[in-house]
Amino acid sequence: MPAYATNMRLKFPILALILEAVTIIVYALLVVYDTSDSHRHDGSHAETNASHPSSPMTLYPMFQDVHVMIFIGFGFLMTFLKRYGFSSVGINLLLAAFGLQWGLLLQNIWHLHDGKIRVNIERMINADFSTATVLISFGAVLGKTSPVQLLIMTLLEITVFCINEHLVVEVLKVSDVGASMTIHAFGAYFGLAVARVLYRPGLRNGHENDGSSYHSDLFAMIGTVYLWMFWPSFNSAIAEPGDAQLRAVINTYFSLAACALAAYATSSLVEKKGKLDMVHIQNATLAGGVAVGTCADMDIQPFGAMVIGITAGIISTVGFKFLTPILASKLGIQDTCGVHNLHGMPGILGGLAGIVAAALGKKEKVSATSQACGLASSLGFALVGGLITGLIMKIPFLGQPPDQNCFDDSIFWEVPEEEEEHEERLTHGDYSKNKAEA
Amino acid sequence: MPAYATNMRLKFPILALILEAVTIIVYALLVVYDTSDSHRHDGSHAETNASHPSSPMTLYPMFQDVHVMIFIGFGFLMTFLKRYGFSSVGINLLLAAFGLQWGLLLQNIWHLHDGKIRVNIERMINADFSTATVLISFGAVLGKTSPVQLLIMTLLEITVFCINEHLVVEVLKVSDVGASMTIHAFGAYFGLAVARVLYRPGLRNGHENDGSSYHSDLFAMIGTVYLWMFWPSFNSAIAEPGDAQLRAVINTYFSLAACALAAYATSSLVEKKGKLDMVHIQNATLAGGVAVGTCADMDIQPFGAMVIGITAGIISTVGFKFLTPILASKLGIQDTCGVHNLHGMPGILGGLAGIVAAALGKKEKVSATSQACGLASSLGFALVGGLITGLIMKIPFLGQPPDQNCFDDSIFWEVPEEEEEHEERLTHGDYSKNKAEA
Amino acid sequence: MPAYATNMRLKFPILALILEAVTIIVYALLVVYDTSDSHRHDGSHAETNASHPSSPMTLYPMFQDVHVMIFIGFGFLMTFLKRYGFSSVGINLLLAAFGLQWGLLLQNIWHLHDGKIRVNIERMINADFSTATVLISFGAVLGKTSPVQLLIMTLLEITVFCINEHLVVEVLKVSDVGASMTIHAFGAYFGLAVARVLYRPGLRNGHENDGSSYHSDLFAMIGTVYLWMFWPSFNSAIAEPGDAQLRAVINTYFSLAACALAAYATSSLVEKKGKLDMVHIQNATLAGGVAVGTCADMDIQPFGAMVIGITAGIISTVGFKFLTPILASKLGIQDTCGVHNLHGMPGILGGLAGIVAAALGKKEKVSATSQACGLASSLGFALVGGLITGLIMKIPFLGQPPDQNCFDDSIFWEVPEEEEEHEERLTHGDYSKNKAEA
Repeated sequence: MPAYATNMRLKFPILALILEAVTIIVYALLVVYDTSDSHRHDGSHAETNASHPSSPMTLYPMFQDVHVMIFIGFGFLMTFLKRYGFSSVGINLLLAAFGLQWGLLLQNIWHLHDGKIRVNIERMINADFSTATVLISFGAVLGKTSPVQLLIMTLLEITVFCINEHLVVEVLKVSDVGASMTIHAFGAYFGLAVARVLYRPGLRNGHENDGSSYHSDLFAMIGTVYLWMFWPSFNSAIAEPGDAQLRAVINTYFSLAACALAAYATSSLVEKKGKLDMVHIQNATLAGGVAVGTCADMDIQPFGAMVIGITAGIISTVGFKFLTPILASKLGIQDTCGVHNLHGMPGILGGLAGIVAAALGKKEKVSATSQACGLASSLGFALVGGLITGLIMKIPFLGQPPDQNCFDDSIFWEVPEEEEEHEERLTHGDYSKNKAEA
Repeated sequence: MPAYATNMRLKFPILALILEAVTIIVYALLVVYDTSDSHRHDGSHAETNASHPSSPMTLYPMFQDVHVMIFIGFGFLMTFLKRYGFSSVGINLLLAAFGLQWGLLLQNIWHLHDGKIRVNIERMINADFSTATVLISFGAVLGKTSPVQLLIMTLLEITVFCINEHLVVEVLKVSDVGASMTIHAFGAYFGLAVARVLYRPGLRNGHENDGSSYHSDLFAMIGTVYLWMFWPSFNSAIAEPGDAQLRAVINTYFSLAACALAAYATSSLVEKKGKLDMVHIQNATLAGGVAVGTCADMDIQPFGAMVIGITAGIISTVGFKFLTPILASKLGIQDTCGVHNLHGMPGILGGLAGIVAAALGKKEKVSATSQACGLASSLGFALVGGLITGLIMKIPFLGQPPDQNCFDDSIFWEVPEEEEEHEERLTHGDYSKNKAEA
Repeated sequence: MPAYATNMRLKFPILALILEAVTIIVYALLVVYDTSDSHRHDGSHAETNASHPSSPMTLYPMFQDVHVMIFIGFGFLMTFLKRYGFSSVGINLLLAAFGLQWGLLLQNIWHLHDGKIRVNIERMINADFSTATVLISFGAVLGKTSPVQLLIMTLLEITVFCINEHLVVEVLKVSDVGASMTIHAFGAYFGLAVARVLYRPGLRNGHENDGSSYHSDLFAMIGTVYLWMFWPSFNSAIAEPGDAQLRAVINTYFSLAACALAAYATSSLVEKKGKLDMVHIQNATLAGGVAVGTCADMDIQPFGAMVIGITAGIISTVGFKFLTPILASKLGIQDTCGVHNLHGMPGILGGLAGIVAAALGKKEKVSATSQACGLASSLGFALVGGLITGLIMKIPFLGQPPDQNCFDDSIFWEVPEEEEEHEERLTHGDYSKNKAEA
């Protein structure tokens, strides 16, 4: 049995404060506002201006929708576990708050203007996007990692993400407006690779806390519904303004609507008594948003988006039912939230749909070959990056919880004692004692 | 005792997938993006362009507010039942996801351009609106119907709604910007008619699950507060841009504020000990949004909106306290959520206010006679459509749950076993056994 | 022991309806729409037009973000108490619904046009803002006051707020775009003064209901996360359009991100076992939004905002851990939600940061002396106003609950009986009886 060092009192605060202090120093050196006066001496900046013709705030409502998806959507989606809600929504906030600062730096380090990074709403949206990769991977290792491990994962994953994104989008000129490949597939396979390295044989037969309660499932539905509603914003936020952005909204709207029907139908179909399963509804209804991401701004027409959505909904539900148990038992990949079914396979489906759409000429200046390279690159960086990150996270000093404390907030959080439970225990204690005496 | 066929395994998936497949085929034939290049050969489309002068995305933030009302607002409002939260928010999502696809088709089938329906944000808002009628009716029959019955209701109700809406708005030129008549009164009386047909004498004396728990009431408040906050968007989303839209926002804002005070005051007044009742707060605070709908864009001034709001808040609360029990016992209408009090009476009040406002000349080109015809038409279509739909839904094959399984998710959902309850039962079992042995 | 008169049946409805009736009458006399036709004869109104160049709806998405913060953010943040969720979210809605009507009147009574108040979106945002002061003070006295007391507090506090705001912003020309001083510090010290007057020695040793449960903490996180996400809108909503507004968004975004890291780190550091405390996470993560408020639109650069945020996060967490108990035991200030740590100290920090920024010339036409006067004025009005208001609220007739019924919804609300608890009690009753018989 390994030694566990789960007291976070010094290592967590020190790590968090050092990361934040370093970030602030780098920001002091590099990061300024992208205000109109900062453009005076900068002819090269015309491009960004063109995309915000009217006002620097044009994209702000889109930004807020994406913001809600990151902090409420991902955060509450993971509260489905009965005793892990504090960590789900709380650590989600922590990782995203650090990740957006780090992501904004690395995403823009490639194109400084006068040696500075100029922050505007579009870059804040992209910074939020970069955190989504981490939150997806967080889902794969949910309940089995410490805050210290997760901060390190955030640092490393966003670094790898920014390299891959730069390569795919800037160098290879791949079209991935809703980031099926660069965020969803990347985040999922990165997280699955980490989960593989952190494999816990002791949880082979499950864990009593690795399940939901009635109300935790309802909290999770808050996350699901927000993600479902605002996904059109996710897929269109950084699209070309005008027709392309409108297409991205419409395609995502219809893909998700068709996907929801498919997820409900399949959930009922795969269950002996025809009942619906909350795990499927919470997740597979969203697969259509993932899968339509790459093609979202392309001219695939509403029915094309619906075909993608219905396919994603079926694949995702079937994955939850049949593939997740096999991944755990045969490959040693314990995927707590089933991110493989929500982000992994639908992300690949999105990449494949993009290749087909490019081959059919659904978007100008996009080649099927580049799209395929973009998918391969995203998967490659994810798997290699995830394996290395997993090995680093395995260092015992980083506070990984022992098997019996998995899926339990109380190892890293003060948890209110439930009065009724307490009374219960006292009563039963009395009773047992009473019985013993008798 | 009737035979029950509540196993959904085949009939639900088959129905859902057929509906979706047919929808996709029709979309492939008829539905395209309303992008600027699609207007090239279409002079008649200038009108729609005029209402979006700046960008195809102008209405997008409004759309997202309405979207939140449909999926979070209606969905969580109905989670007040202690053991029916999965169905409330889950089936709400299912019905709205199908309904918006169906609604978009039928609402626009009357005015094709070059044989095509062109989707834009305004039409997505209207599609979302069309689902609201179903979600209101869902409230009347909540807990007593199967997903198969409800999908059929969605199909039929949206069809009838689109016919009535076309007649009222396009033919009779009735003004109903916030849809007090065409959505709220229509949805309520349609649902009440269905509930009448599905009357269950076995639930005359109530049902142990037909009530709330402390936390289910808090989940419901999420729905209430979102509906309350975003109702100005609901009533103004499709108003004429400019002053009319601003008026719609302001009138709804003040109507709801006044209504909230009235609902709280009345709730305390009608209760022996002066306590507030969550049912009133969750619902009657919203009646002001319903009732001001028809007049929202008219020149009724803020105080006029507040008078409408305060009236609606009082009527609605009194309805919950005194009328709902009478409807159930005397008329055989078991209205689970009390939609008659939130949407029915306030919807009629809104229609009447619109007639008065029209007579007083508060909006140009609107006649009091037409308004009255619009209200009569909406009520007529609702009652007749609801009765016929109810008869169709009564077919035993459609999986209506038996009385004892009403208001209980576990008949159509996998529900997590609550550990404490389980332990409890074991412990009590042991104890009884022990007692018995002693 | 004082006499308690907690039956609200007559006094609450009568007070609420009188307040609403008077409000409607004043609105009928004074309040009109700010539509374009109302400007025809009004040259002086050009200024307001200039800030809305494109459309009367430009600020509407910002308004809705602020609206969500007021009704969901504040409302759910206070649901952390295990048996006080109905009051937290319900009375929050009541007070804000009345407060916004009253605030809109008093904020604009200083500058009538043709004897009228013209409502537009910006004024609705300001009306929402005015209610925030009351909701902050509500946090200080949460669980220990009646709805009647709180309606009176709303009336008085908004009145004092509007006087101070007029003095500080209009007369002294203080810059306080995010209202660190005029809303946050004001609301906190007003509430603390009220709490001082209403000091309850009987709660010196705590109260069994003055704590959270697992799910109530998750409901509270809904409030936290919404406040955290939308705070950039709060701080930028009424900023000068263009660069200043963009700066306000960016500064708040980064201040909150840095603050979150600091709050998590400090929470773990001050706790013996290094565990995170939900109270800190729910509140101190937001202190960065408060503290950056005054400087939000100034040219402090992102790293400056982050320094403010990290400072606020540390101060706030330390305040919860060490200062709140001292305030209660030494000064007789029982601050239920710890508003001193979230709004009080960070508000003062914001005011001080504004003085420094003004001295460093970070905003044109802003003097450090004026800023200091603005802070002093806000604190002075808050303390004096709060003391007087507290004395008025102490009148026994107003229904203050007795100590033993504090922090308990059931004194003013119908609360559903929890079935399990009920069974529990029966079972234990049986058991005890059985034991007794034995």
